[in-house]
Amino acid sequence: MELKEALNTLDRIQRKEIAYMHAMGLLSYDGSTGAPEGTAQNRGETLGVLSEAAYAVTTGKDTRQTLACLKDHWEELDDVTRRIVERKEKDLAELSRIPVEEYVAYTRLINEADAVWHKAKEQNDYNSFAPYIDKIVSARKRNAFLVSPEMDPYDYQLDKFEEGLTRSKCEAFFKTLKEDIVPLVKKVTARPQVDDAINKMHYPLAQQEVLSRKLMDLIGLDRNHCMLGVTEHPFTTGFTKYDVRITTHYHEDSFLSSLYSVIHEGGHALYELHVDDRFAYTCLGGGVSMGVHESQSRFYENIIGRSEAFCELLMPTLQELFPEQTKGFSAHDLFFAANKAEPSLIRTEADELTYTLHIMIRYEIEKKLFAGEVTSKDLPELWNALYREFLGISVPDDRRGVLQDTHWSGGMFGYFPSYALGSAYGPQILHRMEQDFDVFEAVKNNRISRINDWLCEHIWQYGCLYKPGELMEKVFNEPFDPKYYTDYLKTKYAAIYGLND
Amino acid sequence: MELKEALNTLDRIQRKEIAYMHAMGLLSYDGSTGAPEGTAQNRGETLGVLSEAAYAVTTGKDTRQTLACLKDHWEELDDVTRRIVERKEKDLAELSRIPVEEYVAYTRLINEADAVWHKAKEQNDYNSFAPYIDKIVSARKRNAFLVSPEMDPYDYQLDKFEEGLTRSKCEAFFKTLKEDIVPLVKKVTARPQVDDAINKMHYPLAQQEVLSRKLMDLIGLDRNHCMLGVTEHPFTTGFTKYDVRITTHYHEDSFLSSLYSVIHEGGHALYELHVDDRFAYTCLGGGVSMGVHESQSRFYENIIGRSEAFCELLMPTLQELFPEQTKGFSAHDLFFAANKAEPSLIRTEADELTYTLHIMIRYEIEKKLFAGEVTSKDLPELWNALYREFLGISVPDDRRGVLQDTHWSGGMFGYFPSYALGSAYGPQILHRMEQDFDVFEAVKNNRISRINDWLCEHIWQYGCLYKPGELMEKVFNEPFDPKYYTDYLKTKYAAIYGLND
Repeated sequence: MELKEALNTLDRIQRKEIAYMHAMGLLSYDGSTGAPEGTAQNRGETLGVLSEAAYAVTTGKDTRQTLACLKDHWEELDDVTRRIVERKEKDLAELSRIPVEEYVAYTRLINEADAVWHKAKEQNDYNSFAPYIDKIVSARKRNAFLVSPEMDPYDYQLDKFEEGLTRSKCEAFFKTLKEDIVPLVKKVTARPQVDDAINKMHYPLAQQEVLSRKLMDLIGLDRNHCMLGVTEHPFTTGFTKYDVRITTHYHEDSFLSSLYSVIHEGGHALYELHVDDRFAYTCLGGGVSMGVHESQSRFYENIIGRSEAFCELLMPTLQELFPEQTKGFSAHDLFFAANKAEPSLIRTEADELTYTLHIMIRYEIEKKLFAGEVTSKDLPELWNALYREFLGISVPDDRRGVLQDTHWSGGMFGYFPSYALGSAYGPQILHRMEQDFDVFEAVKNNRISRINDWLCEHIWQYGCLYKPGELMEKVFNEPFDPKYYTDYLKTKYAAIYGLND
Repeated sequence: MELKEALNTLDRIQRKEIAYMHAMGLLSYDGSTGAPEGTAQNRGETLGVLSEAAYAVTTGKDTRQTLACLKDHWEELDDVTRRIVERKEKDLAELSRIPVEEYVAYTRLINEADAVWHKAKEQNDYNSFAPYIDKIVSARKRNAFLVSPEMDPYDYQLDKFEEGLTRSKCEAFFKTLKEDIVPLVKKVTARPQVDDAINKMHYPLAQQEVLSRKLMDLIGLDRNHCMLGVTEHPFTTGFTKYDVRITTHYHEDSFLSSLYSVIHEGGHALYELHVDDRFAYTCLGGGVSMGVHESQSRFYENIIGRSEAFCELLMPTLQELFPEQTKGFSAHDLFFAANKAEPSLIRTEADELTYTLHIMIRYEIEKKLFAGEVTSKDLPELWNALYREFLGISVPDDRRGVLQDTHWSGGMFGYFPSYALGSAYGPQILHRMEQDFDVFEAVKNNRISRINDWLCEHIWQYGCLYKPGELMEKVFNEPFDPKYYTDYLKTKYAAIYGLND
């Protein structure tokens, strides 16, 4: 095979893979955004066929021969092609070790589990979903064993979402956070609660939908390539950089919930939409890791979205859309309401301060599941015990407890720590950004585009060209240091709750 | 290859084909139900890859060998397998004659054309869409030439939607209709117009959505396998018999529009949903032809939905949902409003009487396009001239004229005549059904399930097991006769407009 032919074949292979991922992504999205329950099994059949076809492309003779040829021409390849070859070889090595029947069966299992989880959560019926947890954990462990028998099976899951992350790194990282955040939460809880009356008014759904569109425009999301849907659990899915879907969930008695979901998912979407065009139909399109991804979504949600500057920017829009509800409230009131911190039940609606404790609870459970110390039957009790221990609250039912998140039904064990890592990346990114321009002055002046430009220049455009740790060190210009995060939280909450008064 | 192996392979091949059709169907559905315009090109890429994969399955070595083996064992095959082999051989013969590049290019062209048409219609900009008409007609003619060089290219299109339908059959059929319907329309138009004030009130969208769900339940649609969306132009798409999507379009100042769209598309969906389970993952799943399909949708919409019995059944629901709007109106008023007949601009909203004239106009244009007598540049003028000739009205703009239908952008030339054929099948079906039970008594008593059961027994369950003409003769127990249709129209409209007074 000639080099030129190999490069063409590589392009064709990747375009096929992207197309299958697009179709499979859309089928899943369809399943989450209104497709009736009775359609799930059929969707599973189709996902099975497509995943088998995708598997055949990724592990096929064409791919093997092309990669072998490109390795022979290594010296002639540019950096981008080298990185692609590296990633494709990793995919090939991994998939080759998983029998196609297991690969396809897993796709179907996940599709089925997702449908069962939706219903179980709706009906507060943990037992109907429980067997899927054991089946999925067992499949994920088997996957780890087949691909990397030398690795700890939970490390293998972590590495899937954040290359290089391990249980021992998590332990150290979470220890630092715990040392600083737990006492801070105690101090905050001891203070009088802030007033969030502005969030307690009735905000009709139809007007919240208008607000969502305005928020998308405000943060610079291109609605020609990004669409907002409604789901039980907000999420982002990028089929390609040209077609990104975000979802939210509206609560008429708490409009800040959807408001910050839109900004959070919008952060993910901005990242996906701004990867360089040359990577669009390659394996380098899309965000590099879930940690970096969450750093972007949580940066927009919390550091920008929950800043006083953003509240000032947003207030006139709120006053226009909700004149009755916002009467008598100021941007300052909005800022306080948006930063109300207190131990709570639902992760996705947790405040910025206590959020990481929700993550640690899930991390503790996943660790035990993968170590074989617990099985699905132990989870509700363990979950509730950890909520008492970490957050001091009682979980009234599984719907608001162990059934709340979509991750496990989707097989995404090992994902949660990346939320904490992403949260911790944020303040260090802010620190670097502020060396270049006054970030909150830009927000106040409706110049969020400056932030987008900066993040695009330093992070988004690169897609998966660099490894996540490598990319973040380039951004930070120093090693990652969670102290930026804990210092940021201390300063922010000291001001809001008057801890230094 | 052993017979048993061949049968297994045949099953596997069909399951793959169904999966690709499901994924491609969903991508198109997604494109029609909200996906932003900027995502169209990417969707085209994905459709290209999937259609190439589907082409490879249908024309691949496995398929050829399997079909050859089954032909060798013909005497041992049951009727169902024989019909499957017959249809797969036809597909193979057709596709083998179309080069894969042309096949894929056509899929992309259609995807692009659909996006352009949506925008063109919205912006009343015929010129932006016109080149696609020529490209698609040219591609369809080329397709006909490659597959059946001996056939008239327009006959080839007709046969795609109704096996065995030809231009000469259309000419005879439309001549009969024209002879009876045109004078009838003249008589009706000369009479005082019926009162449709009930349809002129303001019906809020949200309440119409509730009505749609009630209508779906009323006609016995299983909402666990059938979902309702909103699009510019209502349609039905069945991914499989387990997942059928229907759409509607709401007008707050004319609630009958969506009401009858839901019933029409619901008729299509009932057919798809009730094909026998054993055909679900085979090429015999789904309706047998567009003519038979339209006979079902128009049977529910017009013969059932616009009957006085149905209006009586529906009225209490309308009074409950719209107490203000329906105050002072009776079921009789609803019946008159639903059957108001007058020459109008939009086919999908045309009354039952003048509907066929809209079809004839499109038939005249398609015939000329395929005979090379006109090209896209002639269409607006020709369209408008035919509307003056057939319906006596002036078309104010292309949005309400030549751009109104989705069919041409989807390559569905030759489809329209099946609407007329389906309309004409309906009264002959009713005639047979009434020999078995009192149809309108059943409607009045909320026993539409009896109608569903009858249609399921005589038509739906068979899927594509029989050829459409063969199936309908079985149903009618005599040859097809359009006189049932014209007699039905004459009787119905004589009563409504007092033509015999």
